[in-house]
Amino acid sequence: MAMDEVERRLREAYDKDFHFEDGHVLGSMCSKPEDIAVKYQALFAEANLGNRGLYPGTAELEEELIADISGLMHLKGGWGQVVGGGTEANITAMWIARNLSGKKKILAPESAHFSMKKAADLLGMELLEVRLDDDYRMDVDDLRRRIDKDTAVIMAVAGSTELGAVDPIKEVGEIADDVFFHVDAAFGGMVLPFLEELEMWSEEWDFRVESVDSISTDMHKMGMATVPSGILLLRNREYVNLISVESPYLTSKRNIGLAGTRPSGAVAGAYAVIKTLGREGYRKIVRSCMENTRYLVEKMGEIGLEPVIKPVMNVAAFRTDRAEEIRREMDRLGWKISTLRNPKAIRIIAMPYVTKEVINDFTEALSDALKSL
Amino acid sequence: MAMDEVERRLREAYDKDFHFEDGHVLGSMCSKPEDIAVKYQALFAEANLGNRGLYPGTAELEEELIADISGLMHLKGGWGQVVGGGTEANITAMWIARNLSGKKKILAPESAHFSMKKAADLLGMELLEVRLDDDYRMDVDDLRRRIDKDTAVIMAVAGSTELGAVDPIKEVGEIADDVFFHVDAAFGGMVLPFLEELEMWSEEWDFRVESVDSISTDMHKMGMATVPSGILLLRNREYVNLISVESPYLTSKRNIGLAGTRPSGAVAGAYAVIKTLGREGYRKIVRSCMENTRYLVEKMGEIGLEPVIKPVMNVAAFRTDRAEEIRREMDRLGWKISTLRNPKAIRIIAMPYVTKEVINDFTEALSDALKSL
Repeated sequence: MAMDEVERRLREAYDKDFHFEDGHVLGSMCSKPEDIAVKYQALFAEANLGNRGLYPGTAELEEELIADISGLMHLKGGWGQVVGGGTEANITAMWIARNLSGKKKILAPESAHFSMKKAADLLGMELLEVRLDDDYRMDVDDLRRRIDKDTAVIMAVAGSTELGAVDPIKEVGEIADDVFFHVDAAFGGMVLPFLEELEMWSEEWDFRVESVDSISTDMHKMGMATVPSGILLLRNREYVNLISVESPYLTSKRNIGLAGTRPSGAVAGAYAVIKTLGREGYRKIVRSCMENTRYLVEKMGEIGLEPVIKPVMNVAAFRTDRAEEIRREMDRLGWKISTLRNPKAIRIIAMPYVTKEVINDFTEALSDALKSL
Repeated sequence: MAMDEVERRLREAYDKDFHFEDGHVLGSMCSKPEDIAVKYQALFAEANLGNRGLYPGTAELEEELIADISGLMHLKGGWGQVVGGGTEANITAMWIARNLSGKKKILAPESAHFSMKKAADLLGMELLEVRLDDDYRMDVDDLRRRIDKDTAVIMAVAGSTELGAVDPIKEVGEIADDVFFHVDAAFGGMVLPFLEELEMWSEEWDFRVESVDSISTDMHKMGMATVPSGILLLRNREYVNLISVESPYLTSKRNIGLAGTRPSGAVAGAYAVIKTLGREGYRKIVRSCMENTRYLVEKMGEIGLEPVIKPVMNVAAFRTDRAEEIRREMDRLGWKISTLRNPKAIRIIAMPYVTKEVINDFTEALSDALKSL
């Protein structure tokens, strides 16, 4: 096919997709990446860090990036890797826990991401859901009742997909003292450190909690990097031996982790953005997102919709029995939101592209829609 | 950090990496992607096809791409998905086979990629290695002896990582009639269809063999796309139910496959390249790579190195007891090759950037090195 025809088709497909900058996507946790991330992802487009010996430069970038994220999460001398996203990170953490313990039971809150079901199925583990308390955080009493000698791992969530709720990591940590403890901070990992700096968060949730063994976060969510760039951090670097195989024909003799192919572009993109934004840049973004979240709650209140919990980060869900109906109607009008099933609610993520203007337009459209529904 | 300082560091890292266009990487199976792939990967950099409802355009591109690859591999009405690479594809195929059969035994040739070890460990399966015949292809007699009622899956290789050897898929297919049969064509999938058109290959290796259930290939290898863009094809689309979970807060209600995050950029890049190159473009590339492979074998012969097998695709390994020593010395001189352990050999992949000039320079440097070793 002629190149201009191919480009025409690609542009056409692009135009059919929804774009964050158009201000109509309110239900995605992905960021509109910084330009510098896109630029350097492209520069490294041919490089597969899975074949490490060819990419000493990218390997250094990855080390620095991991050091920066480790610093944010108070990890000293651990190990980390860029992975394909939160699902891969969760699977990998469960894989380590299973191989370490020889046990199969996973205890996770009801609010855990659906990737935990994949992880359990893949690994032949058993996923047991721990109840939530009234604040939609893992119920520590229920956890205490359910932990037993067959428990391989406890996982907790720092920024639940549905509500942005943060489990009581410190209290869970006391219970998880003898068992592998993974924290899924896919969304919250690049929010909580800055909320803490802004004095809007004070609980310890990261490697300061001594029994936390691993934390995952996604740089393509609140990290402002390109898709896909997940991060997995481990406190104990010995654990990589549990997820390594020999790789005879590569430039490195051991291949660590789930993926064989690891795009250097993801590393370069994430490096570019974390170094240019710095803590100050992220703090500014988080502050602005939290302001917009408060504004959203206020505007939604004006049309009679109340939040399920007071948002702790820039995720807000609003109770309504007509959630699905509203989602469909707003979808018809070109707005992309998502829903919760329990409790029934509509969910909005106040990503940086969800500005006050977007919130005004959205709540106005929603107000009209509610009248006619 | 100031943006120019960040860019300086990224450029520095880039300069430390090896680049295909510099003509010193002879041991990688990755392509230097076409410019159009890089361009459109970048355009779709924010998009996560894992959240399908936001990306109807990309979803169409993926369907067309899968249709094209299906056509190449003679699959009608099956199912396919862009995945993170050959490892993820192999794991996913084994996952399906295990869930389908409830059995644990994998029969794979000794030449199978090391990702099969990961797959087996992750999935709690048992990897049994089938012997190779004198041509380094899976020994069908040994396979027949080892298959039993506990066998979940047979996998075969179409383009082994070490030698580019193709297992006798048709004969394996006769044995695999009642059991899931996966073909790993990570490298060969984008070579064999064109070799066949060039009348340099005649064995049926793809979905024409009736018992083949799945085939994987990597567009970032001989497909000329960006890293990572793997492809997994299934004959029976019902099988996706075995690897799906509910995804309540996404725009689609089921999430299929291993990864949660699926970069639209990988889809757009692969689409761009397959549509612009077309069969004619790939045929030209494969013809040229095969010419260069023959030239390489000739030049290596002149310095006393003989191939382990007559190359069937653009992968050539040359016997030498001093393989590791040679690899280290060539590495010191700035040449990146890889080695085999059994038989001891050095391995070269004649990717499109491994031109006759590169081969001349390399064999000259190797000849000098051999004298001093």
